[in-house]
Amino acid sequence: MIKVSVMYPNSSTVRFDHAYYRDKHMPLLKARMGDHCKSYTVDQGLGGAAPGMPAPYVAMCHIYCDSVESFQAGFGPHAKEIMADIPNYTDLSPVIQISEVVVG
Amino acid sequence: MIKVSVMYPNSSTVRFDHAYYRDKHMPLLKARMGDHCKSYTVDQGLGGAAPGMPAPYVAMCHIYCDSVESFQAGFGPHAKEIMADIPNYTDLSPVIQISEVVVG
Repeated sequence: MIKVSVMYPNSSTVRFDHAYYRDKHMPLLKARMGDHCKSYTVDQGLGGAAPGMPAPYVAMCHIYCDSVESFQAGFGPHAKEIMADIPNYTDLSPVIQISEVVVG
Repeated sequence: MIKVSVMYPNSSTVRFDHAYYRDKHMPLLKARMGDHCKSYTVDQGLGGAAPGMPAPYVAMCHIYCDSVESFQAGFGPHAKEIMADIPNYTDLSPVIQISEVVVG
């Protein structure tokens, strides 16, 4: 199992519509990827390591797939449509990571 | 539900013992936190957004707790012991984030 993590860097002037991300964007991604997306999680940043510190990322999602190839097969054909939805909730460019799920 | 994400920045010279992290460090954290840690996940970085790109983080863990207060109650009394174990698997200083679990 692999996990694709999409992490949106935080800033003091960040625009991020968490409701749209939860209710529209991620369901769109899941609908387009179908069974290639086994499940996903969504996080809203609350804070950093110490009290009062901002969260490094304003939001994150983690998309679980059987393999990198399965992610590519599910996301690739719909990448243009899914990416075109991003400006509806943020101006940010996310940091993207593919990980092996060691403990899931 | 909240999630504490501990993310270890990658580099070309990184030292990170993934087996120790999985088999020793995370079980130690779980044992010390007890029921304050509902569950945790562990990731090993495979790559970035494009083929051949390194993963931004060599490893991550995500610790699920009922609340920030529950995390603090579970981790705080054992912080010294848990932090003292870090040099056994890496020299890195992690990026730490507390998030609200929007979709879990």
